[in-house]
Amino acid sequence: MDKVRVIEVKQSIFADNNAHADRLRARLRSEKSFLVNLMSSPGAGKTTTLARTIADLGGEMRIGVMEADIDSTVDAEAIAAAGAHAIQLHTGGMCHLDAAMTEQGLDELGSADFDLVVLENVGNLVCPAEFDTGAAKNVAILSVPEGHDKPLKYPLMFQVCHALLINKIDVLPYFDFDMDKVVSYAKMRNPSIRIFPICAKTGEGFDAWEDWLREQTAAWNSGE
Amino acid sequence: MDKVRVIEVKQSIFADNNAHADRLRARLRSEKSFLVNLMSSPGAGKTTTLARTIADLGGEMRIGVMEADIDSTVDAEAIAAAGAHAIQLHTGGMCHLDAAMTEQGLDELGSADFDLVVLENVGNLVCPAEFDTGAAKNVAILSVPEGHDKPLKYPLMFQVCHALLINKIDVLPYFDFDMDKVVSYAKMRNPSIRIFPICAKTGEGFDAWEDWLREQTAAWNSGE
Repeated sequence: MDKVRVIEVKQSIFADNNAHADRLRARLRSEKSFLVNLMSSPGAGKTTTLARTIADLGGEMRIGVMEADIDSTVDAEAIAAAGAHAIQLHTGGMCHLDAAMTEQGLDELGSADFDLVVLENVGNLVCPAEFDTGAAKNVAILSVPEGHDKPLKYPLMFQVCHALLINKIDVLPYFDFDMDKVVSYAKMRNPSIRIFPICAKTGEGFDAWEDWLREQTAAWNSGE
Repeated sequence: MDKVRVIEVKQSIFADNNAHADRLRARLRSEKSFLVNLMSSPGAGKTTTLARTIADLGGEMRIGVMEADIDSTVDAEAIAAAGAHAIQLHTGGMCHLDAAMTEQGLDELGSADFDLVVLENVGNLVCPAEFDTGAAKNVAILSVPEGHDKPLKYPLMFQVCHALLINKIDVLPYFDFDMDKVVSYAKMRNPSIRIFPICAKTGEGFDAWEDWLREQTAAWNSGE
Protein backbone atom coordinates (compact mmCIF):
# COMPACT_ATOMS: atom_id res chain seq x y z
CA MET A 1 0.00 0.00 0.00
CA ASP A 2 1.26 3.47 -0.83
CA LYS A 3 2.09 5.70 2.08
CA VAL A 4 -0.89 7.92 2.86
CA ARG A 5 -0.50 11.57 1.95
CA VAL A 6 -1.03 13.82 4.98
CA ILE A 7 -2.02 17.47 4.63
CA GLU A 8 -1.86 19.88 7.60
CA VAL A 9 -4.87 22.12 7.03
CA LYS A 10 -5.24 25.55 8.60
CA GLN A 11 -8.37 27.45 9.52
CA SER A 12 -9.20 30.48 7.40
CA ILE A 13 -8.13 33.85 8.70
CA PHE A 14 -11.20 35.33 7.04
CA ALA A 15 -14.37 35.63 9.01
CA ASP A 16 -16.91 34.82 6.36
CA ASN A 17 -16.96 31.04 6.19
CA ASN A 18 -20.43 30.94 4.62
CA ALA A 19 -19.38 33.03 1.62
CA HIS A 20 -16.29 30.87 1.21
CA ALA A 21 -18.44 27.73 1.33
CA ASP A 22 -20.73 29.11 -1.39
CA ARG A 23 -17.74 29.91 -3.64
CA LEU A 24 -16.45 26.38 -3.07
CA ARG A 25 -19.82 24.89 -4.04
CA ALA A 26 -19.80 26.94 -7.25
CA ARG A 27 -16.32 25.62 -8.07
CA LEU A 28 -17.37 22.02 -7.38
CA ARG A 29 -20.48 22.51 -9.53
CA SER A 30 -18.33 23.64 -12.45
CA GLU A 31 -15.91 20.75 -11.90
CA LYS A 32 -18.83 18.27 -11.85
CA SER A 33 -17.66 16.99 -8.53
CA PHE A 34 -20.22 16.09 -5.85
CA LEU A 35 -18.89 16.70 -2.33
CA VAL A 36 -20.47 14.90 0.62
CA ASN A 37 -19.61 15.97 4.17
CA LEU A 38 -19.90 12.85 6.35
CA MET A 39 -20.26 13.47 10.09
CA SER A 40 -20.84 11.40 13.23
CA SER A 41 -19.69 10.69 16.77
CA PRO A 42 -16.39 8.89 17.17
CA GLY A 43 -16.88 5.20 16.46
CA ALA A 44 -20.28 5.44 14.76
CA GLY A 45 -18.85 3.74 11.68
CA LYS A 46 -17.97 6.47 9.18
CA THR A 47 -14.92 4.67 7.81
CA THR A 48 -16.52 1.22 7.59
CA THR A 49 -19.60 2.69 5.89
CA LEU A 50 -17.42 4.56 3.45
CA ALA A 51 -15.24 1.53 2.68
CA ARG A 52 -18.30 -0.55 1.77
CA THR A 53 -19.83 2.28 -0.28
CA ILE A 54 -16.57 2.61 -2.23
CA ALA A 55 -16.45 -1.13 -2.87
CA ASP A 56 -20.03 -1.04 -4.21
CA LEU A 57 -19.88 2.17 -6.28
CA GLY A 58 -16.21 2.35 -7.23
CA GLY A 59 -16.85 0.56 -10.54
CA GLU A 60 -19.34 3.15 -11.77
CA MET A 61 -17.88 6.46 -10.58
CA ARG A 62 -14.52 7.98 -9.64
CA ILE A 63 -14.44 8.43 -5.86
CA GLY A 64 -11.98 10.50 -3.86
CA VAL A 65 -11.87 10.66 -0.08
CA MET A 66 -10.52 13.23 2.38
CA GLU A 67 -10.10 11.83 5.88
CA ALA A 68 -10.03 14.50 8.56
CA ASP A 69 -8.42 13.53 11.81
CA ILE A 70 -6.83 15.25 14.75
CA ASP A 71 -3.67 13.24 14.58
CA SER A 72 -3.54 9.81 12.93
CA THR A 73 -3.72 8.12 9.53
CA VAL A 74 -5.73 5.06 10.62
CA ASP A 75 -8.75 5.97 8.49
CA ALA A 76 -6.99 7.02 5.30
CA GLU A 77 -5.11 3.72 5.33
CA ALA A 78 -8.40 1.80 5.64
CA ILE A 79 -9.95 3.77 2.78
CA ALA A 80 -6.91 3.39 0.53
CA ALA A 81 -7.07 -0.35 1.21
CA ALA A 82 -10.74 -0.29 0.09
CA GLY A 83 -9.55 0.99 -3.28
CA ALA A 84 -10.34 4.70 -3.32
CA HIS A 85 -7.97 7.58 -3.76
CA ALA A 86 -7.60 8.99 -0.22
CA ILE A 87 -5.72 11.76 1.50
CA GLN A 88 -5.51 12.52 5.19
CA LEU A 89 -6.23 16.01 6.51
CA HIS A 90 -4.70 16.80 9.88
CA THR A 91 -6.60 19.52 11.70
CA GLY A 92 -3.90 20.20 14.30
CA GLY A 93 -6.29 19.72 17.20
CA MET A 94 -9.26 21.52 15.61
CA CYS A 95 -12.57 19.80 16.20
CA HIS A 96 -14.09 20.58 12.82
CA LEU A 97 -13.33 21.62 9.25
CA ASP A 98 -14.34 24.91 7.69
CA ALA A 99 -14.60 25.76 3.98
CA ALA A 100 -10.98 26.98 3.78
CA MET A 101 -9.63 23.75 5.26
CA THR A 102 -11.86 21.73 2.94
CA GLU A 103 -10.62 23.69 -0.06
CA GLN A 104 -6.97 22.98 0.84
CA GLY A 105 -7.88 19.30 0.86
CA LEU A 106 -9.73 19.51 -2.48
CA ASP A 107 -6.74 21.25 -4.09
CA GLU A 108 -4.42 18.50 -2.91
CA LEU A 109 -6.80 15.74 -3.94
CA GLY A 110 -7.53 17.30 -7.33
CA SER A 111 -11.30 17.39 -6.99
CA ALA A 112 -11.95 17.83 -10.75
CA ASP A 113 -10.75 14.25 -11.28
CA PHE A 114 -13.58 12.77 -9.19
CA ASP A 115 -17.34 12.39 -9.66
CA LEU A 116 -17.85 11.97 -5.93
CA VAL A 117 -15.66 13.31 -3.13
CA VAL A 118 -16.39 12.33 0.45
CA LEU A 119 -15.07 14.42 3.31
CA GLU A 120 -14.96 12.29 6.45
CA ASN A 121 -15.19 15.00 9.09
CA VAL A 122 -13.74 14.84 12.63
CA GLY A 123 -15.74 12.47 14.88
CA ASN A 124 -17.89 14.93 16.79
CA LEU A 125 -21.63 15.72 16.88
CA VAL A 126 -21.20 19.35 17.92
CA CYS A 127 -18.62 21.49 16.16
CA PRO A 128 -18.63 20.09 12.61
CA ALA A 129 -22.34 20.92 12.36
CA GLU A 130 -21.56 24.61 12.92
CA PHE A 131 -19.31 25.08 9.88
CA ASP A 132 -20.42 24.93 6.27
CA THR A 133 -17.63 23.05 4.48
CA GLY A 134 -18.87 23.85 0.98
CA ALA A 135 -20.28 20.35 0.54
CA ALA A 136 -23.25 19.76 -1.75
CA LYS A 137 -24.86 17.56 0.90
CA ASN A 138 -24.32 16.78 4.58
CA VAL A 139 -24.77 13.21 5.78
CA ALA A 140 -24.72 12.09 9.42
CA ILE A 141 -24.30 8.61 10.82
CA LEU A 142 -25.89 7.72 14.14
CA SER A 143 -25.17 4.23 15.43
CA VAL A 144 -27.60 2.14 17.45
CA PRO A 145 -25.39 1.91 20.59
CA GLU A 146 -25.39 5.73 20.90
CA GLY A 147 -29.11 5.78 21.66
CA HIS A 148 -32.22 7.21 20.05
CA ASP A 149 -32.17 10.46 22.05
CA LYS A 150 -29.29 12.05 20.13
CA PRO A 151 -31.43 14.34 17.91
CA LEU A 152 -32.79 15.84 21.15
CA LYS A 153 -29.32 16.46 22.55
CA TYR A 154 -27.42 17.54 19.41
CA PRO A 155 -30.12 19.42 17.48
CA LEU A 156 -27.94 21.30 14.99
CA MET A 157 -26.30 18.16 13.56
CA PHE A 158 -29.66 16.70 12.60
CA GLN A 159 -30.96 20.05 11.37
CA VAL A 160 -28.12 20.57 8.86
CA CYS A 161 -28.07 17.02 7.46
CA HIS A 162 -29.77 15.98 4.25
CA ALA A 163 -29.49 12.27 5.02
CA LEU A 164 -29.10 10.25 8.20
CA LEU A 165 -27.69 6.73 8.23
CA ILE A 166 -28.68 4.68 11.28
CA ASN A 167 -25.78 2.24 11.52
CA LYS A 168 -25.16 -1.02 13.41
CA ILE A 169 -28.76 -2.23 13.08
CA ASP A 170 -27.38 -5.78 13.53
CA VAL A 171 -27.04 -5.09 17.27
CA LEU A 172 -30.57 -3.69 17.71
CA PRO A 173 -31.57 -6.72 19.85
CA TYR A 174 -28.89 -5.88 22.44
CA PHE A 175 -29.71 -2.20 22.94
CA ASP A 176 -32.73 -0.20 24.09
CA PHE A 177 -32.95 1.71 20.83
CA ASP A 178 -36.34 2.83 19.56
CA MET A 179 -36.26 3.25 15.77
CA ASP A 180 -39.65 4.98 15.62
CA LYS A 181 -38.52 7.51 18.21
CA VAL A 182 -35.23 8.34 16.48
CA VAL A 183 -37.06 8.86 13.18
CA SER A 184 -39.58 11.16 14.81
CA TYR A 185 -36.90 13.12 16.74
CA ALA A 186 -34.76 13.53 13.60
CA LYS A 187 -37.75 14.73 11.55
CA MET A 188 -38.61 17.16 14.33
CA ARG A 189 -35.21 18.78 13.64
CA ASN A 190 -35.46 18.49 9.88
CA PRO A 191 -38.72 17.34 8.29
CA SER A 192 -37.12 16.59 4.91
CA ILE A 193 -34.21 14.49 6.21
CA ARG A 194 -33.80 11.13 4.43
CA ILE A 195 -33.22 8.24 6.82
CA PHE A 196 -31.51 4.95 5.92
CA PRO A 197 -31.11 2.16 8.51
CA ILE A 198 -27.94 0.25 7.60
CA CYS A 199 -25.36 -2.21 8.84
CA ALA A 200 -21.91 -1.36 7.50
CA LYS A 201 -20.57 -4.72 8.66
CA THR A 202 -23.08 -6.86 6.72
CA GLY A 203 -24.25 -4.45 3.99
CA GLU A 204 -27.89 -4.54 5.07
CA GLY A 205 -29.77 -1.46 3.87
CA PHE A 206 -26.96 -0.27 1.58
CA ASP A 207 -29.03 -0.50 -1.62
CA ALA A 208 -31.33 2.35 -0.61
CA TRP A 209 -28.46 4.52 0.67
CA GLU A 210 -26.39 3.94 -2.45
CA ASP A 211 -29.36 4.62 -4.73
CA TRP A 212 -29.80 7.98 -3.00
CA LEU A 213 -26.09 8.77 -3.29
CA ARG A 214 -26.05 7.75 -6.98
CA GLU A 215 -29.09 9.93 -7.75
CA GLN A 216 -27.71 12.92 -5.85
CA THR A 217 -24.31 12.64 -7.55
CA ALA A 218 -25.86 12.37 -11.01
CA ALA A 219 -28.19 15.32 -10.36
CA TRP A 220 -25.37 17.58 -9.14
CA ASN A 221 -22.95 16.63 -11.89
CA SER A 222 -25.55 17.17 -14.62
CA GLY A 223 -26.12 20.69 -13.27
CA GLU A 224 -29.61 20.09 -11.87
CA MET B 1 -40.30 14.95 39.96
CA ASP B 2 -39.26 18.55 40.49
CA LYS B 3 -38.68 20.60 37.43
CA VAL B 4 -34.97 20.57 36.58
CA ARG B 5 -33.13 23.83 37.18
CA VAL B 6 -31.45 25.06 34.01
CA ILE B 7 -28.48 27.44 34.09
CA GLU B 8 -27.28 29.21 30.94
CA VAL B 9 -23.51 29.30 31.40
CA LYS B 10 -21.23 31.71 29.56
CA GLN B 11 -17.61 31.33 28.58
CA SER B 12 -15.12 33.46 30.48
CA ILE B 13 -14.04 36.71 28.86
CA PHE B 14 -10.63 36.25 30.48
CA ALA B 15 -7.97 34.40 28.57
CA ASP B 16 -6.32 32.50 31.36
CA ASN B 17 -8.49 29.45 31.85
CA ASN B 18 -5.71 27.47 33.54
CA ALA B 19 -5.26 30.02 36.31
CA HIS B 20 -9.01 30.14 36.81
CA ALA B 21 -9.12 26.33 37.02
CA ASP B 22 -6.39 26.34 39.69
CA ARG B 23 -8.29 28.91 41.75
CA LEU B 24 -11.41 26.79 41.45
CA ARG B 25 -9.54 23.68 42.65
CA ALA B 26 -8.28 25.63 45.69
CA ARG B 27 -11.86 26.67 46.49
CA LEU B 28 -13.11 23.09 46.15
CA ARG B 29 -10.28 21.84 48.34
CA SER B 30 -11.27 24.26 51.09
CA GLU B 31 -14.94 23.31 50.68
CA LYS B 32 -14.04 19.58 50.95
CA SER B 33 -15.83 18.97 47.69
CA PHE B 34 -14.34 16.52 45.18
CA LEU B 35 -15.12 17.49 41.59
CA VAL B 36 -14.98 14.87 38.84
CA ASN B 37 -15.14 15.94 35.19
CA LEU B 38 -16.80 13.08 33.28
CA MET B 39 -16.22 13.06 29.52
CA SER B 40 -17.05 10.78 26.58
CA SER B 41 -18.48 10.60 23.09
CA PRO B 42 -22.23 11.04 22.74
CA GLY B 43 -23.97 7.85 23.79
CA ALA B 44 -21.05 6.16 25.56
CA GLY B 45 -23.13 5.89 28.72
CA LYS B 46 -22.18 8.83 30.95
CA THR B 47 -25.67 9.30 32.37
CA THR B 48 -26.39 5.59 32.92
CA THR B 49 -23.00 5.09 34.60
CA LEU B 50 -23.61 8.09 36.79
CA ALA B 51 -27.14 7.01 37.75
CA ARG B 52 -25.86 3.60 38.93
CA THR B 53 -22.91 5.16 40.78
CA ILE B 54 -25.29 7.50 42.59
CA ALA B 55 -27.58 4.61 43.53
CA ASP B 56 -24.58 2.70 44.95
CA LEU B 57 -22.77 5.54 46.74
CA GLY B 58 -25.62 7.91 47.56
CA GLY B 59 -26.07 6.39 51.04
CA GLU B 60 -22.50 7.12 52.12
CA MET B 61 -21.77 10.53 50.61
CA ARG B 62 -23.62 13.64 49.47
CA ILE B 63 -23.52 13.74 45.66
CA GLY B 64 -24.32 16.68 43.41
CA VAL B 65 -24.42 16.57 39.61
CA MET B 66 -24.06 19.21 36.92
CA GLU B 67 -25.31 18.05 33.54
CA ALA B 68 -23.87 20.01 30.66
CA ASP B 69 -25.82 19.92 27.47
CA ILE B 70 -26.18 21.96 24.34
CA ASP B 71 -29.90 22.22 24.59
CA SER B 72 -31.99 19.68 26.52
CA THR B 73 -32.76 18.50 30.06
CA VAL B 74 -32.94 14.76 29.27
CA ASP B 75 -29.90 13.90 31.41
CA ALA B 76 -30.64 16.04 34.45
CA GLU B 77 -34.10 14.50 34.63
CA ALA B 78 -32.59 10.99 34.60
CA ILE B 79 -30.09 11.91 37.32
CA ALA B 80 -32.71 13.59 39.49
CA ALA B 81 -34.80 10.42 39.14
CA ALA B 82 -31.77 8.41 40.37
CA GLY B 83 -31.89 10.41 43.56
CA ALA B 84 -29.08 12.95 43.31
CA HIS B 85 -29.30 16.70 43.43
CA ALA B 86 -28.85 17.75 39.78
CA ILE B 87 -28.79 20.94 37.80
CA GLN B 88 -28.59 21.37 34.05
CA LEU B 89 -25.99 23.64 32.45
CA HIS B 90 -26.86 24.89 29.00
CA THR B 91 -23.78 25.80 27.02
CA GLY B 92 -25.63 27.71 24.29
CA GLY B 93 -24.03 25.68 21.52
CA MET B 94 -20.54 25.54 23.03
CA CYS B 95 -18.88 22.15 22.69
CA HIS B 96 -17.11 22.17 26.04
CA LEU B 97 -17.04 23.74 29.50
CA ASP B 98 -14.24 25.94 30.79
CA ALA B 99 -13.46 26.78 34.42
CA ALA B 100 -15.65 29.90 34.42
CA MET B 101 -18.67 27.96 33.17
CA THR B 102 -18.00 25.22 35.70
CA GLU B 103 -17.78 27.78 38.50
CA GLN B 104 -21.16 29.28 37.55
CA GLY B 105 -22.59 25.77 37.88
CA LEU B 106 -20.89 25.14 41.25
CA ASP B 107 -22.25 28.43 42.59
CA GLU B 108 -25.77 27.48 41.59
CA LEU B 109 -25.45 23.95 42.90
CA GLY B 110 -23.84 25.07 46.18
CA SER B 111 -20.74 22.89 45.96
CA ALA B 112 -19.89 23.18 49.68
CA ASP B 113 -22.95 21.04 50.46
CA PHE B 114 -21.58 18.02 48.58
CA ASP B 115 -18.74 15.55 49.19
CA LEU B 116 -18.67 14.60 45.52
CA VAL B 117 -19.73 16.72 42.57
CA VAL B 118 -19.80 15.21 39.10
CA LEU B 119 -19.71 17.43 36.04
CA GLU B 120 -21.12 15.52 33.09
CA ASN B 121 -19.39 17.34 30.24
CA VAL B 122 -20.76 17.76 26.69
CA GLY B 123 -20.59 14.50 24.71
CA ASN B 124 -17.45 15.07 22.65
CA LEU B 125 -13.98 13.48 22.60
CA VAL B 126 -12.21 16.57 21.27
CA CYS B 127 -13.00 19.97 22.76
CA PRO B 128 -13.72 19.13 26.42
CA ALA B 129 -10.21 17.64 26.71
CA GLU B 130 -8.71 21.01 25.81
CA PHE B 131 -10.18 22.96 28.74
CA ASP B 132 -9.28 22.49 32.39
CA THR B 133 -12.60 22.76 34.25
CA GLY B 134 -11.04 22.98 37.69
CA ALA B 135 -11.95 19.36 38.47
CA ALA B 136 -9.82 17.33 40.87
CA LYS B 137 -9.88 14.39 38.46
CA ASN B 138 -10.87 13.78 34.85
CA VAL B 139 -12.63 10.54 33.96
CA ALA B 140 -13.42 9.37 30.42
CA ILE B 141 -15.83 6.71 29.31
CA LEU B 142 -15.15 4.77 26.12
CA SER B 143 -17.83 2.28 25.10
CA VAL B 144 -17.14 -1.00 23.33
CA PRO B 145 -19.15 -0.13 20.18
CA GLU B 146 -16.91 2.90 19.55
CA GLY B 147 -13.89 0.68 18.87
CA HIS B 148 -10.49 0.15 20.45
CA ASP B 149 -8.67 2.65 18.20
CA LYS B 150 -10.03 5.78 19.89
CA PRO B 151 -6.88 6.54 21.97
CA LEU B 152 -4.98 6.68 18.65
CA LYS B 153 -7.48 9.10 17.12
CA TYR B 154 -8.28 11.34 20.10
CA PRO B 155 -4.94 11.44 21.95
CA LEU B 156 -5.54 14.44 24.21
CA MET B 157 -8.66 12.99 25.84
CA PHE B 158 -6.77 9.91 27.02
CA GLN B 159 -3.75 11.96 28.01
CA VAL B 160 -5.67 14.25 30.38
CA CYS B 161 -7.77 11.54 32.06
CA HIS B 162 -6.91 9.96 35.40
CA ALA B 163 -9.34 7.08 34.93
CA LEU B 164 -10.93 5.41 31.92
CA LEU B 165 -14.14 3.41 32.13
CA ILE B 166 -14.62 0.93 29.30
CA ASN B 167 -18.40 0.64 29.19
CA LYS B 168 -20.86 -1.77 27.55
CA ILE B 169 -18.65 -4.84 28.08
CA ASP B 170 -21.86 -6.92 27.89
CA VAL B 171 -21.83 -6.47 24.11
CA LEU B 172 -18.17 -7.47 23.63
CA PRO B 173 -19.19 -10.67 21.80
CA TYR B 174 -20.94 -8.62 19.08
CA PHE B 175 -18.12 -6.18 18.28
CA ASP B 176 -14.54 -6.44 17.05
CA PHE B 177 -13.16 -4.77 20.15
CA ASP B 178 -9.72 -5.75 21.43
CA MET B 179 -9.45 -5.05 25.16
CA ASP B 180 -5.68 -5.63 25.25
CA LYS B 181 -5.18 -3.14 22.44
CA VAL B 182 -7.29 -0.40 24.00
CA VAL B 183 -5.43 -0.79 27.30
CA SER B 184 -2.07 -0.55 25.56
CA TYR B 185 -3.14 2.43 23.39
CA ALA B 186 -4.55 4.29 26.42
CA LYS B 187 -1.39 3.67 28.46
CA MET B 188 0.68 4.89 25.53
CA ARG B 189 -1.08 8.25 25.96
CA ASN B 190 -0.97 8.18 29.75
CA PRO B 191 1.03 5.46 31.54
CA SER B 192 -0.63 6.08 34.91
CA ILE B 193 -4.24 5.98 33.70
CA ARG B 194 -6.50 3.66 35.75
CA ILE B 195 -8.74 1.49 33.58
CA PHE B 196 -12.02 -0.08 34.70
CA PRO B 197 -14.05 -2.30 32.35
CA ILE B 198 -17.72 -1.89 33.32
CA CYS B 199 -21.28 -2.46 32.21
CA ALA B 200 -23.54 0.36 33.38
CA LYS B 201 -26.63 -1.65 32.46
CA THR B 202 -25.81 -4.71 34.65
CA GLY B 203 -23.39 -3.23 37.20
CA GLU B 204 -20.51 -5.53 36.24
CA GLY B 205 -17.15 -4.04 37.22
CA PHE B 206 -18.67 -1.24 39.34
CA ASP B 207 -17.05 -2.39 42.61
CA ALA B 208 -13.52 -1.52 41.42
CA TRP B 209 -14.60 1.81 39.89
CA GLU B 210 -16.56 2.83 42.98
CA ASP B 211 -13.69 1.82 45.28
CA TRP B 212 -11.41 4.11 43.30
CA LEU B 213 -13.94 6.96 43.41
CA ARG B 214 -14.49 6.47 47.17
CA GLU B 215 -10.72 6.51 47.84
CA GLN B 216 -10.14 9.57 45.67
CA THR B 217 -13.01 11.47 47.26
CA ALA B 218 -11.82 10.64 50.79
CA ALA B 219 -8.22 11.58 50.00
CA TRP B 220 -9.19 14.95 48.48
CA ASN B 221 -11.65 15.84 51.23
CA SER B 222 -9.17 14.97 53.98
CA GLY B 223 -6.68 17.36 52.39
CA GLU B 224 -4.22 14.73 51.14
